Amino acid sequence: MNGLSKKLYNQYVAVMQKAADFNNAAAVLGWDQEVFMPPKGFEFRGKQIATLTAHAHELVTSTSFGALLQDLVGTNGLSEDEMANVQLSYEDYQKNTKLSAEFVEKLSTQTSKCYAAWIDARRKNDFKVFQPSLQEMIVLKRQQADLYGYEGHPYNALLDDYEKGATVKLLDKVFDTVKKELPPLLDSIKNCVQVDDSLFAQHFNKQQQFNFTIELLGKMGYDFEAGRQDFSEHPFSTSFAPTDARVTTRVNEKDLSSIIWSSIHEGGHALYEQGLSTAQYGLPLGAAVSLSIHESQSRLWENCVGRSLVFWNYFYPVLKQYFPEQLAAFSTQDFYKAANKVTPSLIRTEADELTYHFHVMIRYEIEKELIAGNLNADNLSEVWNNYYQQFLGISSTNDLQGVLQDVHWSHGSFGYFPTYSLGSFYAAQFFEQALKDIPSLEKEIEASQFQNLVSWLRMNVHQYGRKHNSEALCLRITGKGLDFNSFMNYAQRKFCSIYGA
Amino acid sequence: MNGLSKKLYNQYVAVMQKAADFNNAAAVLGWDQEVFMPPKGFEFRGKQIATLTAHAHELVTSTSFGALLQDLVGTNGLSEDEMANVQLSYEDYQKNTKLSAEFVEKLSTQTSKCYAAWIDARRKNDFKVFQPSLQEMIVLKRQQADLYGYEGHPYNALLDDYEKGATVKLLDKVFDTVKKELPPLLDSIKNCVQVDDSLFAQHFNKQQQFNFTIELLGKMGYDFEAGRQDFSEHPFSTSFAPTDARVTTRVNEKDLSSIIWSSIHEGGHALYEQGLSTAQYGLPLGAAVSLSIHESQSRLWENCVGRSLVFWNYFYPVLKQYFPEQLAAFSTQDFYKAANKVTPSLIRTEADELTYHFHVMIRYEIEKELIAGNLNADNLSEVWNNYYQQFLGISSTNDLQGVLQDVHWSHGSFGYFPTYSLGSFYAAQFFEQALKDIPSLEKEIEASQFQNLVSWLRMNVHQYGRKHNSEALCLRITGKGLDFNSFMNYAQRKFCSIYGA
Repeated sequence: MNGLSKKLYNQYVAVMQKAADFNNAAAVLGWDQEVFMPPKGFEFRGKQIATLTAHAHELVTSTSFGALLQDLVGTNGLSEDEMANVQLSYEDYQKNTKLSAEFVEKLSTQTSKCYAAWIDARRKNDFKVFQPSLQEMIVLKRQQADLYGYEGHPYNALLDDYEKGATVKLLDKVFDTVKKELPPLLDSIKNCVQVDDSLFAQHFNKQQQFNFTIELLGKMGYDFEAGRQDFSEHPFSTSFAPTDARVTTRVNEKDLSSIIWSSIHEGGHALYEQGLSTAQYGLPLGAAVSLSIHESQSRLWENCVGRSLVFWNYFYPVLKQYFPEQLAAFSTQDFYKAANKVTPSLIRTEADELTYHFHVMIRYEIEKELIAGNLNADNLSEVWNNYYQQFLGISSTNDLQGVLQDVHWSHGSFGYFPTYSLGSFYAAQFFEQALKDIPSLEKEIEASQFQNLVSWLRMNVHQYGRKHNSEALCLRITGKGLDFNSFMNYAQRKFCSIYGA
Repeated sequence: MNGLSKKLYNQYVAVMQKAADFNNAAAVLGWDQEVFMPPKGFEFRGKQIATLTAHAHELVTSTSFGALLQDLVGTNGLSEDEMANVQLSYEDYQKNTKLSAEFVEKLSTQTSKCYAAWIDARRKNDFKVFQPSLQEMIVLKRQQADLYGYEGHPYNALLDDYEKGATVKLLDKVFDTVKKELPPLLDSIKNCVQVDDSLFAQHFNKQQQFNFTIELLGKMGYDFEAGRQDFSEHPFSTSFAPTDARVTTRVNEKDLSSIIWSSIHEGGHALYEQGLSTAQYGLPLGAAVSLSIHESQSRLWENCVGRSLVFWNYFYPVLKQYFPEQLAAFSTQDFYKAANKVTPSLIRTEADELTYHFHVMIRYEIEKELIAGNLNADNLSEVWNNYYQQFLGISSTNDLQGVLQDVHWSHGSFGYFPTYSLGSFYAAQFFEQALKDIPSLEKEIEASQFQNLVSWLRMNVHQYGRKHNSEALCLRITGKGLDFNSFMNYAQRKFCSIYGA
């Protein structure tokens, strides 16, 4: 690095790290809001968070920062990693500055309005209350896609916000396979003897449940010196630096299953954040690459590891020590099967590992048509129910259990849902590869030894930050891009053995 | 308010509220750091807080903000309160811009160095390790006084940072009275039968102690919908808005006295913050007036209320329900006397209500001479011990129990200590007035009815924010300025009855 490029690069790093400080501070305020804030704190807290994020945004969209990036892109004294940071930041800058301040303001105002309408509609259990605001939001999102610009389908422009490089072409291909290959498996499961998961529905002491997940997270390799777990209404993970990446969970004293996989899931997210480079703090190479890869980490732990028989061969006896009475009559096999019960349901967040992807696919199909202008909000409730009838064989006239169930659209988050499925599919591919690279992995899991798995994830995923995008990363790790076959093979093996299907 | 001044005033409010958002966000990060942050989080957290506070400082010291203030000071379309805000902000601006960025940087660097040296000196129990850094800090503080400018004594310039309007003249007068009037009372107490406070030294369950203070704070009128209490190593109160003002406390299972008065003290601070105007958020009239008035609120609750017999006539039976075994053998009188035991000691933070002021006075005398240049750091350990011998009749060759005990000087906080005593003296004056204004106050306290007292404090102190400075406020409330007699009368009445002196 020569003198000039070094100087410019340091200026660039200073701006980026300052913006990160403001964003991470906002994340602390957000965490506190969900976990500990007293109720009257909401109004001022909302303004404080808005002030912080707006300022961070200003820093990285200022014309002077744009000029600095342009100068840096032109220099040739940077290392490969430095160049990658600059290039990604320049792309972010170009995207971020495509929306005028007025448009961003309009979006923000519409989001508040739309969220309030969604809350109101849920209270009244009536989609029509939400419909007009949602329609206005859809119109704005179509405009946003136009402002961003796109090749192919306008939805690509919005996808890019959550999943850089993903396209309708990629998603159509993967969901077409889902539509073709999952139903036969589900049909054969339907024809088998159903799994009994009533063991979860007993009384389980709250603190004991929490203590078990603390033990579990610790064994997974989650570093409690660089994080903590608390309760919140909706479980989430958040990070203020790799040295402080936290999780929350929720507990239901009448349902043991609620906390366990929520803790493992968020723990998987947090392990990713703890594994990011502190040296690259605030820079693209110190940030998670995409939502789908983030989700691949949580799903790999939650499902591939956390719903496996080998995992529970170790942890079920541990869990029994926490709840000796409630679990006395149940074997590890009973527990393992209950943890993997498959049954079509109306609520996405409660869905099993298989039917989950129909929930996502339905939302994807709807979003795509909404953004293309082929569909409007007016008869969305019927469209929704028809899709559920078609793919899951169930539907409800109750909008709360239907089109009103998710908050995402009220936030204007179109393009977010597909990353949930992509995450599961990447997870299956990564886990398949990890099993190849670590021949003793299943034995290690059975002994609750996760060091090699964590190191493998650190080495293959975490250390790179945004250096390689999702598909490039997948290619590096598995030798190919997104491939639904890994998930399908994993699912077939697992559920055929559980159901004897 | 005419059109132009309205427009300018709104611009001014926007800048101030933005700066407040950054400062309050920093306060959330600071609270989290003391209460919940995992240990590895320290490094990045420190930088994040520094980024937030530096930016807030930039906002209110920018030349454009100075020009805006100058324009506003010149307009005549503002209301009285608006003018007060502008005037106070203008004075702050003028003071804040007297130090160059280089000097602020120098101070900040020296603070880090000096704090590290203090920690090291404490570990080695050797003042000499601290001495060189402290001496450099003293030199910088003398320069700071010169840069601020002052009338009379240079120490006045530093005092002004914590206690606007306070002077050596005022403090000399009050501490001269302390030196004259307190020793005879202490002497007569020394000649009486001493109080037995061994009832505190039993085993008291941590959670039960905490629960008692939660009940107590609730009765005091502390709003748990706009605050919360947690544990931290050193108790403190902090505020992010009047709608979210929090306290922390500490617990010692072998000493019941530790938590009780710490909770009441911090609760008094937090009641002040909860009582500030939300409409004046971010503006001088929405901020606490000074450290001494803040301390007057905590001390009024801790001592005038929380160590009174009427208070414990109600709360001791409550406390006994929490600890029936431990307290069975002790009467309310026993407890009340134990809560007011007077005995000279080496550690300021553990001192009783009377000897406490010698601790403060000694630090004041030393600081004054250090800043005047009449004293240097080199033989401070001896100077310290001589003062303790002279005023408290005890001293220690152990620097940890002497000159190294407080963190303040390592932070460069010269001028802070006197506010602790001023707070107690203002508290006694305010409480004396409250007793006059609310004739049934003692009966109300005895029934744990604090609404009238809280309203009185809201009306007389909280609602004004910084509108009137400490002395002006005291004059409004009591008809005179700071007057040690109220404290002396209060102390004489109370301790003569307890000790029969």
